[in-house]
Amino acid sequence: MDILIKNVMLNNETKDIFIKDGKILEITENSTKKADKIINGENKAALPSFINGHTHAAMTLFRGYADDLPLKVWLEEKIWPLESKLTDEDVYWGTKLACLEMIKNGITVFNDMYWHWEATAKAVCEMGMRGFISGVFIDMLDEKKSEKEIEENIRLFEVSKKYAPYVIFALGPHAVYSVSKKSLEWIRDFSERHNILVHMHLLETREEKTFTEEKYGLSTVDFLNSIGILSERYIGCHGCWIDEHDSEILKKTGSKIVHMPVSNLKLAVGRIIPHFLFKNKGIKYCFGTDGCASNNHLDIIETIKFSSLIAKFFTHDPTMMPAKESFELATKTAAEIFFLPQWEIKEGNAPDIILIDLNRPELTPCFDIYSNIVYASNGYVVDTVISMGKVVMENRYVKGEEEILKEANLKAKAMVKR
Amino acid sequence: MDILIKNVMLNNETKDIFIKDGKILEITENSTKKADKIINGENKAALPSFINGHTHAAMTLFRGYADDLPLKVWLEEKIWPLESKLTDEDVYWGTKLACLEMIKNGITVFNDMYWHWEATAKAVCEMGMRGFISGVFIDMLDEKKSEKEIEENIRLFEVSKKYAPYVIFALGPHAVYSVSKKSLEWIRDFSERHNILVHMHLLETREEKTFTEEKYGLSTVDFLNSIGILSERYIGCHGCWIDEHDSEILKKTGSKIVHMPVSNLKLAVGRIIPHFLFKNKGIKYCFGTDGCASNNHLDIIETIKFSSLIAKFFTHDPTMMPAKESFELATKTAAEIFFLPQWEIKEGNAPDIILIDLNRPELTPCFDIYSNIVYASNGYVVDTVISMGKVVMENRYVKGEEEILKEANLKAKAMVKR
Repeated sequence: MDILIKNVMLNNETKDIFIKDGKILEITENSTKKADKIINGENKAALPSFINGHTHAAMTLFRGYADDLPLKVWLEEKIWPLESKLTDEDVYWGTKLACLEMIKNGITVFNDMYWHWEATAKAVCEMGMRGFISGVFIDMLDEKKSEKEIEENIRLFEVSKKYAPYVIFALGPHAVYSVSKKSLEWIRDFSERHNILVHMHLLETREEKTFTEEKYGLSTVDFLNSIGILSERYIGCHGCWIDEHDSEILKKTGSKIVHMPVSNLKLAVGRIIPHFLFKNKGIKYCFGTDGCASNNHLDIIETIKFSSLIAKFFTHDPTMMPAKESFELATKTAAEIFFLPQWEIKEGNAPDIILIDLNRPELTPCFDIYSNIVYASNGYVVDTVISMGKVVMENRYVKGEEEILKEANLKAKAMVKR
Repeated sequence: MDILIKNVMLNNETKDIFIKDGKILEITENSTKKADKIINGENKAALPSFINGHTHAAMTLFRGYADDLPLKVWLEEKIWPLESKLTDEDVYWGTKLACLEMIKNGITVFNDMYWHWEATAKAVCEMGMRGFISGVFIDMLDEKKSEKEIEENIRLFEVSKKYAPYVIFALGPHAVYSVSKKSLEWIRDFSERHNILVHMHLLETREEKTFTEEKYGLSTVDFLNSIGILSERYIGCHGCWIDEHDSEILKKTGSKIVHMPVSNLKLAVGRIIPHFLFKNKGIKYCFGTDGCASNNHLDIIETIKFSSLIAKFFTHDPTMMPAKESFELATKTAAEIFFLPQWEIKEGNAPDIILIDLNRPELTPCFDIYSNIVYASNGYVVDTVISMGKVVMENRYVKGEEEILKEANLKAKAMVKR
């Protein structure tokens, strides 16, 4: 499919952008190319799309169901009982709702970890997004469960091929306290053999730190390093309790981090990620929203603003994490983390693209597009979304959105009555 | 003017709301009242509008012009040189832009402090909002300037009467370090005699604390108390460095506080307001966005989310500042602070009203409307705004918005070229 975006703002200049099968073939003034689809880019800015580094997509169904509770009550009395009753249908519609919300917020790629793998995969495909989808690999340090999980992950890896290129299978070891050493070793080997990403919760809470110290006599990061699971394919999510020593090891092994300030603040995990530490060490990191049970809003622009402002505040330095740098973490750097093509809008590249509606009070005046997006707006300023060379949102409309809202509502209501 | 809102969600029930000249006369099912204006409330929720406790409205013109800079450079090289060149026309269009943005975010009342008082007042009137408008009372501890400011404030108080009921004159002593004791004493008397609010920056930075200790041998709050300026009419903005002792005095005098977490984080003022301290002491406080030079987005929902999440994080308690409590601080409590009528949607009350569009992915499902608004949305979920009994936004459209965007853009561009 060919797309021609006419007269759009790109790096402060008015340009036409010609895209063929997802690849940018021409950026010029007054393009003469013919295209199946022509988009009027007037009063809009073209930018690369956002990448959401960590989600539990189907948990949109839990949005607002259990907020403002102590962690133990939240998990044991609210979330877990509901999760145990979830069906494939629930996860399918919950994921579709998540995809719809993400598309509306300019996100085209996400990294998910949840139950009912195939239901998630089906939803992602139908929405035309790209999802790195991992099941939740949990064995609770039980050998039998470990074997079952290994079998299941081998099966899912095979199954995943039919969902390409929308779905990329990832391994999702839940966390050090819920996955045995043996399982982690298998994951290490399988990841290496098939070049698969490893998506894991890492040092969200202090308890995780204590756990490995007591069980393995090692810090969490030292333990993971001793197994050899840390590599360029390793994506650790949260990382709130990472210290200087940990960050040296993460840097050496090429491991990546996903930062989730909104979730961390809301659950009051006690420590916020040391942005300046990562920056100083040169560790690659990007942003995640987390799932809707802990950050109810799948809006990565909101997450960027939280992250940037917190970085300024905690370092007593208002120059920390300037707008363009923050924006690039969520786009260019995130693409590098997930081994996606070059994510800048340049001829020869194939990033997903969003068009921002500039004709809005909160984006007026426009001295600096990055500052306006990061500090003055949210995902709703996105007007058009192009994912893998196809228009998945135009004039803020996504095909089929009415049905998704209706079905997700029904599923959520039925779920809490079961 | 009569307005009838049909079939709207109000406290989880479908109701009709009949409003005459701003007052709610009937809340019922299937109202038979006739009205000049009928609004279809289906798939919408009715809520009281938001009140923005502290702004410098016209500074929308500076949005994105000078971010991510050290405080000194930001003020001395960027903001002050531009402010010195501002014209009445600039402030008029800048304020109109701010009003437009606030209406779009469900805000109908704000508390402003800025230069070019009449230009601001004119803009507020035309937009149909309510503004507590103070000039910037600054004498830099200079007696001649003090006299001039006093004269000017007496004049503005008289002038303000022609802008009623949209504009309510307020006294705006800038801060303890920029206003002399003599001026503060005059403000105290004038405020008492005419029952006028006193709108002042209070303990935003640590330097303010040091200033009064060195100059007057008293803590900032003790100094203000010694003058007798603290009262139920006193509204202190920021309050980041308030301690236990200060909060006792603020409580005793009935003083109010406006909390601005987004601005405080962005400027890295070093300390965030102790929410739990205010709560424990029973000090009335509400939220402010601050001006667009320090928080580029006039969205109070965003501010509430920041405040709530920060309160949870800093107290290590996820139950702190639950959604409904946060929402009420920005509506009901804020109305009390500004001596507005009862701000709940009940028969006999006269709050401004907003309708939220429920038919959106981020508000789906809707287990708890307050949780969805505070944690999962932003101001753009507001569909309709009723201010003082008149519809100022419907289907997200505000009359004249195209002209405001155009003129504000031109003014901002011309301003930086001067």
